[in-house]
Amino acid sequence: MCRWLAYSGTPVLLDTILYRPQHSLIDQSLHSRMGVETTNGDGFGVGWYGRHVDTPAIVREIGPAWNNRNLREIAGHVRSPLFFAHIRASTGTAVQQTNCHPFRHGRWMWMHNGAIAEFHRIRRELALAVDPDLFLDIEGSTDSEMMFYLALTFGLEKDPPAAVARMAELVERTGHEHGVEFPLQMTVAVTEGERLWAFRYSSQKESRSLFYSTRVETLRALHPDMAFLREISDETRLIVSEPLGDLPGAWQEVPESTYGVVQPGGGEIHSFTPQAA
Amino acid sequence: MCRWLAYSGTPVLLDTILYRPQHSLIDQSLHSRMGVETTNGDGFGVGWYGRHVDTPAIVREIGPAWNNRNLREIAGHVRSPLFFAHIRASTGTAVQQTNCHPFRHGRWMWMHNGAIAEFHRIRRELALAVDPDLFLDIEGSTDSEMMFYLALTFGLEKDPPAAVARMAELVERTGHEHGVEFPLQMTVAVTEGERLWAFRYSSQKESRSLFYSTRVETLRALHPDMAFLREISDETRLIVSEPLGDLPGAWQEVPESTYGVVQPGGGEIHSFTPQAA
Amino acid sequence: MCRWLAYSGTPVLLDTILYRPQHSLIDQSLHSRMGVETTNGDGFGVGWYGRHVDTPAIVREIGPAWNNRNLREIAGHVRSPLFFAHIRASTGTAVQQTNCHPFRHGRWMWMHNGAIAEFHRIRRELALAVDPDLFLDIEGSTDSEMMFYLALTFGLEKDPPAAVARMAELVERTGHEHGVEFPLQMTVAVTEGERLWAFRYSSQKESRSLFYSTRVETLRALHPDMAFLREISDETRLIVSEPLGDLPGAWQEVPESTYGVVQPGGGEIHSFTPQAA
Amino acid sequence: MCRWLAYSGTPVLLDTILYRPQHSLIDQSLHSRMGVETTNGDGFGVGWYGRHVDTPAIVREIGPAWNNRNLREIAGHVRSPLFFAHIRASTGTAVQQTNCHPFRHGRWMWMHNGAIAEFHRIRRELALAVDPDLFLDIEGSTDSEMMFYLALTFGLEKDPPAAVARMAELVERTGHEHGVEFPLQMTVAVTEGERLWAFRYSSQKESRSLFYSTRVETLRALHPDMAFLREISDETRLIVSEPLGDLPGAWQEVPESTYGVVQPGGGEIHSFTPQAA
Repeated sequence: MCRWLAYSGTPVLLDTILYRPQHSLIDQSLHSRMGVETTNGDGFGVGWYGRHVDTPAIVREIGPAWNNRNLREIAGHVRSPLFFAHIRASTGTAVQQTNCHPFRHGRWMWMHNGAIAEFHRIRRELALAVDPDLFLDIEGSTDSEMMFYLALTFGLEKDPPAAVARMAELVERTGHEHGVEFPLQMTVAVTEGERLWAFRYSSQKESRSLFYSTRVETLRALHPDMAFLREISDETRLIVSEPLGDLPGAWQEVPESTYGVVQPGGGEIHSFTPQAA
Repeated sequence: MCRWLAYSGTPVLLDTILYRPQHSLIDQSLHSRMGVETTNGDGFGVGWYGRHVDTPAIVREIGPAWNNRNLREIAGHVRSPLFFAHIRASTGTAVQQTNCHPFRHGRWMWMHNGAIAEFHRIRRELALAVDPDLFLDIEGSTDSEMMFYLALTFGLEKDPPAAVARMAELVERTGHEHGVEFPLQMTVAVTEGERLWAFRYSSQKESRSLFYSTRVETLRALHPDMAFLREISDETRLIVSEPLGDLPGAWQEVPESTYGVVQPGGGEIHSFTPQAA
Repeated sequence: MCRWLAYSGTPVLLDTILYRPQHSLIDQSLHSRMGVETTNGDGFGVGWYGRHVDTPAIVREIGPAWNNRNLREIAGHVRSPLFFAHIRASTGTAVQQTNCHPFRHGRWMWMHNGAIAEFHRIRRELALAVDPDLFLDIEGSTDSEMMFYLALTFGLEKDPPAAVARMAELVERTGHEHGVEFPLQMTVAVTEGERLWAFRYSSQKESRSLFYSTRVETLRALHPDMAFLREISDETRLIVSEPLGDLPGAWQEVPESTYGVVQPGGGEIHSFTPQAA
Repeated sequence: MCRWLAYSGTPVLLDTILYRPQHSLIDQSLHSRMGVETTNGDGFGVGWYGRHVDTPAIVREIGPAWNNRNLREIAGHVRSPLFFAHIRASTGTAVQQTNCHPFRHGRWMWMHNGAIAEFHRIRRELALAVDPDLFLDIEGSTDSEMMFYLALTFGLEKDPPAAVARMAELVERTGHEHGVEFPLQMTVAVTEGERLWAFRYSSQKESRSLFYSTRVETLRALHPDMAFLREISDETRLIVSEPLGDLPGAWQEVPESTYGVVQPGGGEIHSFTPQAA
């Protein structure tokens, strides 16, 4: 499938998070350890919020991340307090820019690892459930973008956890109606530029891996010698498909069937259940 | 919009038709004379039938045709009795391989120049009219591919002119219902590998340019010195968005609101009217 | 050939200069008015200095600028006090990232419009004149990059006008030795992040067009209603292959055989003559 | 490094060799077993001879082979008696079409797996040894292309083994002069469309893996039920970086420091030693 990371906190050069860690996302594009595929070379994307513009910038390419010079240039020169990065392993849909994550709608960004099982069989039915005005903005052919537009249809911009729960319920119900036993497999990140939600859920309750970084003040106590930890704020957080390195104590697993919120004032974890409106 | 050509006749190196003529399609990609845009640099495609396989090969790229080395290699080494070539000028939809022409379904190839007016407003409604089983195979986001799948839904594989007439009727009716005065503008080529149909139609009766080559025996009489004309069969035909050169007597305009058939035994031209089932 | 622009002054979103003007560089990629070619679709590049890193970021792509979504994203979110942008029309050398401008060496950026006449015949001889240590860093196959590395060899980092004069002399001398009457045609921009030099020269004294923007305070007096002019500093300057619009009084031609310097304290124009060491 | 295969024999659809085998070259692009890198996703190329043109067609792309639809189209429709295919894992040089294999000069094709150790340090010196007329045709920046042009300089078109031996001697001598202990590592395939030479050599005598297919009549006796073996001529041969499957008896290792010739009348293996003129 794919791998992703989401960063929120003290503004840093993207490079600090994307390239420098020992098992960085760029390294994962060649050598994922926990993914279904070891290679994630079917496109990538990075989306970041800056100081001057409300909407995020989103740069997406169809080649592998590991050899992309433009990504390295951008990462080495752009600083951001909140950004997403995603590397893709296609499960069959076309390798094209409009199928690369993150997806954007206004100020909102969305990225996903996982799949809707037998998506091609229920794609049309799901498409019909998307608000007709929103439908116009769908550009690609992935299940991931469809999930985003369903969530938008169900009120993502007002109540993200509720909208994602309704989307998940629709996907599961539609899948079941077509005889699919386990219709949904997802780790999703979504943000409007200030708060960040991350969901881990699958119909089978065997969701793809997802981790969040330990509280910075705890890490500082564990590793008093790490300069980087002194430079970032207490509220800085990373959420990742797989840990970026082996630093003891640095990573916590996001529990099965939960979602986390990263926000000013501190993060929270809640349980997650698909739910009809 | 776009430019295209369709060739049927004595097997030739694609190169002979694609690159060598004075105002070849490759030249048109930089300097179209009759197109809405002079530059057609938003992708291209070529599709050809060979001797060993029933379905056509289709090679499509998102860059300009004029600087593409692979196209030149293929054109210089592949010989075919029936092929399509298309250069694209996007009117807004994404520049991606799945939006490049020709499109394929089984043995069938389709390409288009023109547009459905205000497509984004009626895209969803047209998508609903596509046979649900066929819908699964739509990969891109263009009006051209939608027209193809509507025509397939309406029996293209059994009666191409009737299916295209029904597609055109649906597009016009749907457009009119949404207050669009002139919903359809099209020159379309379609083939199953033996016969070739070319349609020229627009709601406004001001269709994009379309030409067919004069009968080869007539041309031979006019230009007894042209070696190329002695090498090709009487039934060889070209249909093109704009003439490939200034050879006197070589090109005839396809009349407004008609379609032509190129087939063993000789071509024909018929009038074309959108028509409900 | 190509088209380029160089901006120095009040930090702006790249977008303000690259996309918004009436006859922007992006528009010139499709419809150049003064270029040798009307279409500049064989790649592009943008290089900018930021606040946090000494070296410029350089993003280059092999497709046309006009349909590139990543360029639009970057331009809409990155702000810079000094940046270059270049659109390419290849005269035969490969369309590849390492042949796109700007080129970088350490803090220095270089871009070029023009050509070394019959470059392929003297390429080897020029290559031998490049400092062997610098030679290692040449990645592409263009005359433009070779000119940069020759100028670096001749002391560009210490005295740019003198180094460019020596490079030009070598190119002319070598060309003449091979019977080329007019070996050099160039408009070149080069910077280290603070000052900016722009050269206009050709052996034939018929150099490609080059313009610089009128002093901002003069423009403000001419156009007191233009908000943009009140937002930028007196020292802001643009140097462009062709004017970005028709604003009366806004553009001055860089004279034949001269170079200009844009720097804190005010710009200057000097005469330029190729000169042996 | 890279992986490659060379086919000579009964004309087949490229697809038969490139995609259908269990551990095909396309599979090796994601999961190489014997390569230095498991992923070979930095470009690919295929070159084939046809019936109508003397020079080979060469199609090269900078993305991974595994997700390239055009390669699949070509492979599914082009038939050839002699073709090369190559998948690249860059060791640092730019990912661009001119760095993808195979390389072509007139009727000749060349591809390589391996490296010149510390190539950047001796690149200039090797470049100077290339015939100045040939030098003009070098387009990329790889050691592999340089080796090809050195071999051409040393008479490849007259006596391939002698020319490759001189090239190897020059590379080793130049490397040693710069203090490189083991300058050369190579498996090389070269052809003019009729005969095919494959070299396996390294300064350290630990060369990259290389295999050739067992004589077809022997394989038929071993596997009387395999239809494919009855369809191909006795003289059909494959040379590959790693075996395409586990068929018992199908693959023989090319011995260290040897080269093989595939030619009408039967193949041969000879020892190989770098040798000054």
